[in-house]
Amino acid sequence: MSETLPRVVIIGGGFGGLRTAQHLKNIPAAVTLIDRSNHHLFQPLLYQVATAALSPADIAAPIRGVLRKLPNCEILLAEGTGVDTVKQEVYFENRALAYDYLVLATGARHSYFGKDDWEKFAPGLKTIQDATAIRQNILIAFEKAEMEPDSEIRKHYLNFVIVGGGPTGVEMAGSIAELASVALAADFKHIDPTAAQITLIEAGPRILAGFPEVLSENAKRSLERLGVNVITGARVGHIDENGVMIGEKRIFAKTIIWAAGVVASPAGRWLHTDTDRVGRVIVEPNLSLPGHANVFVIGDTALVKDEEGKPLPGVAPVAMQEGVYVANLISNRIKAAQQKKTPPVENPFRYRNKGNLATIGRSSAIADIGKFKLSGFIAWFTWLFVHIFYLIGFRNRLVVIIQWAWSYFTFQRGARLITMDENAKARTNRPQPSEIDNRPRSAARSI
Amino acid sequence: MSETLPRVVIIGGGFGGLRTAQHLKNIPAAVTLIDRSNHHLFQPLLYQVATAALSPADIAAPIRGVLRKLPNCEILLAEGTGVDTVKQEVYFENRALAYDYLVLATGARHSYFGKDDWEKFAPGLKTIQDATAIRQNILIAFEKAEMEPDSEIRKHYLNFVIVGGGPTGVEMAGSIAELASVALAADFKHIDPTAAQITLIEAGPRILAGFPEVLSENAKRSLERLGVNVITGARVGHIDENGVMIGEKRIFAKTIIWAAGVVASPAGRWLHTDTDRVGRVIVEPNLSLPGHANVFVIGDTALVKDEEGKPLPGVAPVAMQEGVYVANLISNRIKAAQQKKTPPVENPFRYRNKGNLATIGRSSAIADIGKFKLSGFIAWFTWLFVHIFYLIGFRNRLVVIIQWAWSYFTFQRGARLITMDENAKARTNRPQPSEIDNRPRSAARSI
Repeated sequence: MSETLPRVVIIGGGFGGLRTAQHLKNIPAAVTLIDRSNHHLFQPLLYQVATAALSPADIAAPIRGVLRKLPNCEILLAEGTGVDTVKQEVYFENRALAYDYLVLATGARHSYFGKDDWEKFAPGLKTIQDATAIRQNILIAFEKAEMEPDSEIRKHYLNFVIVGGGPTGVEMAGSIAELASVALAADFKHIDPTAAQITLIEAGPRILAGFPEVLSENAKRSLERLGVNVITGARVGHIDENGVMIGEKRIFAKTIIWAAGVVASPAGRWLHTDTDRVGRVIVEPNLSLPGHANVFVIGDTALVKDEEGKPLPGVAPVAMQEGVYVANLISNRIKAAQQKKTPPVENPFRYRNKGNLATIGRSSAIADIGKFKLSGFIAWFTWLFVHIFYLIGFRNRLVVIIQWAWSYFTFQRGARLITMDENAKARTNRPQPSEIDNRPRSAARSI
Repeated sequence: MSETLPRVVIIGGGFGGLRTAQHLKNIPAAVTLIDRSNHHLFQPLLYQVATAALSPADIAAPIRGVLRKLPNCEILLAEGTGVDTVKQEVYFENRALAYDYLVLATGARHSYFGKDDWEKFAPGLKTIQDATAIRQNILIAFEKAEMEPDSEIRKHYLNFVIVGGGPTGVEMAGSIAELASVALAADFKHIDPTAAQITLIEAGPRILAGFPEVLSENAKRSLERLGVNVITGARVGHIDENGVMIGEKRIFAKTIIWAAGVVASPAGRWLHTDTDRVGRVIVEPNLSLPGHANVFVIGDTALVKDEEGKPLPGVAPVAMQEGVYVANLISNRIKAAQQKKTPPVENPFRYRNKGNLATIGRSSAIADIGKFKLSGFIAWFTWLFVHIFYLIGFRNRLVVIIQWAWSYFTFQRGARLITMDENAKARTNRPQPSEIDNRPRSAARSI
């Protein structure tokens, strides 16, 4: 690629970074996208991999494949380790790359609010490895229960606790409940999987706080109909290999899943700028870094507020719209520079909220779309349609439709695979944010 | 399950063990199938997972799901650790289980002929974990080449060596050649994947020695048409991280795959009986253990000869027919015992060879079916049909058909996932056979 062209470096191949690259397609610039993983992950469906409904490859597309058609974009499989906004350089694996424009789209990871030792007992769900590890934990719990002579311990193996009542927690709880009550029901001789206890714990007053109250209520009822025990206004104070504690009360469970909170990727700290308490970079109205007009931060790594000053949620549509916005901004500036013109006025980024969806297992969901507040089957069908529509790649769509149709009509799960050793649970521990930016690349894929 | 019933214990959920359990369905016995993995693996398609064409779950079915309909069969996810043929007990995870009839169907693993340190450089292909590790090695090699400044080393990353010219080696070579020349061709900016060198090394005078010479010739030509460099009559004397040595000649390659030989699972040695040089148990004509009429060994763990005294190959049809044969034998004996009659005369096991197939990438294969010796597209189509037909589970069949159709028409691969850290290569090292029977269970799934 000719070095006379301005170089745009994008770090992160998630929803935000991918959209940025795609919308820079036809501008005269050398675009480099850096990601530590070779695939773009459709995170909204990750919980289905974690509950054996889909295979990893169904919701992951190789970034090279997705961006193949972009003549001006190169992809580097590498983990960024730092940025120098003065030298205008990005660092990864002992290499430096100079940029004219930088787009930081490095996402977020789950946070244990300082209780990082909880992670080995309660893994979170952000990557394919997280999902296959959790899938394995869930499936092994039933196998251990089947072999366990002690009836008390057997119960503990059949107890599942999900910490955090956001979309991920709700979707996991519903999906595990169905896995136990239907897909596995007939498969064991010594235990009754339908006796499994799924408990969803939310610290706030209601689950799905991002949705209108009426929908939260509907979601709660749907979960309870699936046999999920929903506890709100309860803060988990302790987690170990035998369960969680709420105040003095212990809930025994051999399988615990963490869906309680996220923290922005540490990349934000590379910029030595102001962040909020979860590490999101505070950006200008045009998503640029204060004092660095050519550096942009988007997606879960950025703190962007809506008209009422409420922070935008960490969801795919926000990241995608920010990516498109930044790509257009950069295009305009580059074109203007070439034509020796001043770039057009840059209107602040505005998020167009097309609606929010959450699913509660088979044929039930909630949808908050403008003035429409939908629940039940119709919301679920909307959810189905939207997720298939946004899934990248014809093949993935087709395969996912078939897996879903098959699961829907047979009540079975297609990906009941235990493929890792039992240390996988421990191995999913990733270094703490404070270590991340200088950790060896391999750790980034630790499984 | 009532303990008054005779207990049949089957160790191994492969083609042999599964068939045995299925054909014991309607007899009055308590059947226990023990496997250390929770899924039955369709090994003939494992190379397609290793080359990113299929997902693990596409060729693996949960054993509990497959055998759900069997009222008299329980499944234990555990690793057998020994057998006492005098006490008539099976041991696994500090537990003992008494049997009246034992069927050992524990398969085979790849063998390095004593050069076990080669495994970390040249992993073999027997399990899902092997396949995902090899898939990752192959994909990462291209990524490293893309980032490698030194043109010589870049070449080494684009060299792939497959050791062993049997079906697995041939199928891997063909599939990697196509992955490089087609699926990845357009995805890189700094390297030309079509420049990848794939070398297949066979110690014997010809590849696919199990097939008629004319078919071996056709297969060789097909591979060469795909750009594979086929070397026969060459023995690999040394393997390290930079490639292999044939005599004094070094072939540089960062990715090496071992398909050169297998050894029977160590379970054979639990029986303290005669085995051949690759550890296969020498059995009676009725597949029972000499001196122990109620112990049977089938599949890759047994040495069974055909009419001409040639050992039967370690392929699925042999294991399946042996499983059915043994199941019928046991049924007859149990029924006879109940009716206080003497069991019918037991004719020796006879293998009905329905033919042999091997595929050499896209729309080319060879088929040796009775008097028919087929090559090219028609053989490939036969291969396609047979493999879909024998694949377990409606869902798997449908999904695999779609993935294949998609790959066939788009020339793409659907499962290009790098999901493990780079130590995965090292981690695929499994303990040596001598250690296996007393190694911790977790090691069995080491990924």
